Amino acid sequence: MDGQDDLLAELRRTAGYAAVWGSDELKNRDPGFDDRNFKAATLVRPADTEGVATLVRFCARRGIELVPQGGRTGLAGGAATTAGQIICDLGAMNRIEEIDTLARVAIVQAGTPLAALQEAAGAHGLEPGIDLAARGSCTIGGMISTNAGGIMAFRNGTMRHRLLGLEAVLPDGRVFRDLTRVLKTSAGYDLKHLFVGAEGTLGIVTRAAIRLDPVGGATATALVGVGDAASAQRIVRHFLGMTGTSLRAAEIMWRDFTLAMSRMLGLEPGTLPLDAPCLLLLELAADTAGQAAAALEQGLSGMWEAAGIADGLVAGSLAQARAIWRLREETEQIERMHDHPPSFDVSVPGGAIDAYVARITEDLKGIDADYAPYVFGHLADGNLHISINADSPPRERYRAIEDVLYAGLREIGGSFSAEHGVGLDKRDACERHADPVKQELARAVKALLDPENLMNPGKVVR
Amino acid sequence: MDGQDDLLAELRRTAGYAAVWGSDELKNRDPGFDDRNFKAATLVRPADTEGVATLVRFCARRGIELVPQGGRTGLAGGAATTAGQIICDLGAMNRIEEIDTLARVAIVQAGTPLAALQEAAGAHGLEPGIDLAARGSCTIGGMISTNAGGIMAFRNGTMRHRLLGLEAVLPDGRVFRDLTRVLKTSAGYDLKHLFVGAEGTLGIVTRAAIRLDPVGGATATALVGVGDAASAQRIVRHFLGMTGTSLRAAEIMWRDFTLAMSRMLGLEPGTLPLDAPCLLLLELAADTAGQAAAALEQGLSGMWEAAGIADGLVAGSLAQARAIWRLREETEQIERMHDHPPSFDVSVPGGAIDAYVARITEDLKGIDADYAPYVFGHLADGNLHISINADSPPRERYRAIEDVLYAGLREIGGSFSAEHGVGLDKRDACERHADPVKQELARAVKALLDPENLMNPGKVVR
Repeated sequence: MDGQDDLLAELRRTAGYAAVWGSDELKNRDPGFDDRNFKAATLVRPADTEGVATLVRFCARRGIELVPQGGRTGLAGGAATTAGQIICDLGAMNRIEEIDTLARVAIVQAGTPLAALQEAAGAHGLEPGIDLAARGSCTIGGMISTNAGGIMAFRNGTMRHRLLGLEAVLPDGRVFRDLTRVLKTSAGYDLKHLFVGAEGTLGIVTRAAIRLDPVGGATATALVGVGDAASAQRIVRHFLGMTGTSLRAAEIMWRDFTLAMSRMLGLEPGTLPLDAPCLLLLELAADTAGQAAAALEQGLSGMWEAAGIADGLVAGSLAQARAIWRLREETEQIERMHDHPPSFDVSVPGGAIDAYVARITEDLKGIDADYAPYVFGHLADGNLHISINADSPPRERYRAIEDVLYAGLREIGGSFSAEHGVGLDKRDACERHADPVKQELARAVKALLDPENLMNPGKVVR
Repeated sequence: MDGQDDLLAELRRTAGYAAVWGSDELKNRDPGFDDRNFKAATLVRPADTEGVATLVRFCARRGIELVPQGGRTGLAGGAATTAGQIICDLGAMNRIEEIDTLARVAIVQAGTPLAALQEAAGAHGLEPGIDLAARGSCTIGGMISTNAGGIMAFRNGTMRHRLLGLEAVLPDGRVFRDLTRVLKTSAGYDLKHLFVGAEGTLGIVTRAAIRLDPVGGATATALVGVGDAASAQRIVRHFLGMTGTSLRAAEIMWRDFTLAMSRMLGLEPGTLPLDAPCLLLLELAADTAGQAAAALEQGLSGMWEAAGIADGLVAGSLAQARAIWRLREETEQIERMHDHPPSFDVSVPGGAIDAYVARITEDLKGIDADYAPYVFGHLADGNLHISINADSPPRERYRAIEDVLYAGLREIGGSFSAEHGVGLDKRDACERHADPVKQELARAVKALLDPENLMNPGKVVR
């Protein structure tokens, strides 16, 4: 305990930190999406890149493990800590340093929340081209570190594709500084990509150059009931191929998810078309909202039979559009129905989605006859989110569920982790389901950059 | 020479190769864009991935250097060879193994020419979303290895962004196999990105999963005369922000380039609006070609004065559109005017383009009063191609030209190499102009993967 007091005292004497918290300060604060985030007894908020480098060198000298944290919205335990570790909290580095409207680039500090960047870019008629439900809390650094995807990835790519430049502090305290503002660079190994999806295990992201796109037109929202994902994909393909409008969202929800969500949200029966095996949420942009709504109406009625549409509604008001989006996005409702329900995040190639959902639904019943998955997600890129209707199970059972969900995904070109990362919770699954040569190479890269294994140790690779 | 005969004999006895050529077979063949490509006395064409791995292990055992080659259209000496090296020619691995229309993915072998993929995808109403002038010869493996960009990168990203999965043979003969078909994967370090832009120095790309997009609508082409890049950018920004159409190309040409090209191509005076400091080539897609042409007409006349448009023409026929594109793309005409003119490929952030062109034009005259740059390129992503109106200069002078062109680019967030790579020819410039920490890390990664320095040695990093 004295050692801990000495540590805090020394950290507090050091220049470059906006705050240093011990257990007393931490215990009454919100640890975010994961109780394990605040198991560490020490949290340091560097004020700038130099402060991060100072902290990294401090920890390297003493052999102290360091865990970076952003918005603490991660879903794979990537920010989980243990008592002796120090948290490097990027929350004080939340400045949007520049919006370069001519190059269409934002230079942001890693702790900037996505919503803040969306707002700042929006003031110039621009957008970062990436959006997800945790937009108010998740930070740019965390999104880079997990290669976040979200709603618009099928159009604009994931965080990796929005990233033009990066600054990161390496495990030995050196600063990798490549704040390129241009899309095209073939100027030697593009090593910023090592840090994308590395979840802070190869260094700490401190600043980034994010690509911005012009925001065009206005949107309309529709909810469409169909029989399966294949029908929904025919509809999506139609709107993707239209030149006069641009598809901004194509979200899918299976019936068990829809029913649970509408019950929890207290949706009035009959207000939305909920009675179909699958619901497809579409958001379409056109020059005006009226044109977007008309294009949705026209497109849907034109393929009503061909695509097997059971029911459909183009939102007639912002309130109705909002209700449709709440149905899809307020997924914490599912978390409230069960105690830490096992939750997953897979990518399934377009042609295999219905077969995949049918298979896991059946195979889960082989583990427990009462198991049924809530399935929803981003249809146009095949990213499905899956929660099981059960409390957190014992380890062996969790593993059995994982193996049902991840079986065969690699062989068909899918991914056992689409956008949530590996963190602590999916590391074992990664070892069972990823290409062995890729894993060997990952361990070699980790050992090269972080030979003492002090940067977010135990996450992603072991 | 006997050793060489023995080597050829042994290679010819080995299974897995479609062809083995010695100097006799090589000397009458086309070395492609670079005479140095065929300085090696031995070329092997593996028939498949296992054949590549066999060759890599063969070379590793004997300490023989190996240089991979695709379409031999590289512009930075990335495929240059010396006598004792073996060329690993991917030309026999040119199969499009699958077009997965539901997942919108193509699985292709590395030696597949871009045009072949464009054609095969087009038969399904899809496109790889990347296009460049060398489309008939350049190969997917080479495009990955140089992170090719081209005409549509501002919309669809570079090759890195079109790449979903990758297979590569590592320098020790292991096969890295990650043929993911989905966009979203955050499943551990995404190490396929190490091979993108590595120009074969970390392993040999053998297969790839390439993202495809639906082809929508029809296009119209315009050529617009403006006073500077800033004016052209205002026009581009207008069309980028339009929802009802989609911009497919925004190419820029400065006057010296335009005049030289139109003279070399024998364009009739008056057939195209050539008399402006800058020409902007636009290609716009809409539901029909007529709508696209109307949107161009309307958009351009609506901002004629505001954007400072001097002259403009919307192509009224395919022949006219073709003439406009020839003006931009047949740049080998420039090569014919001079003997190996010094040629460069930089990325300049949007707001800095006019100042950059003015500065280099002036500073080049400080080296030689007769020097004038031909400048043209991809406006919407700031990628400028620059050739000097002179024969290949001595080394010191070449270096002085480089320093004029590359000075200050890193500081403003540009790149000294946009899409041509580093190869042999820009390695020295890379050492002078890239972030030192990035270079240290690059050398460490190279040493980790290729400790014997046998994979395309001397290229990109030393």
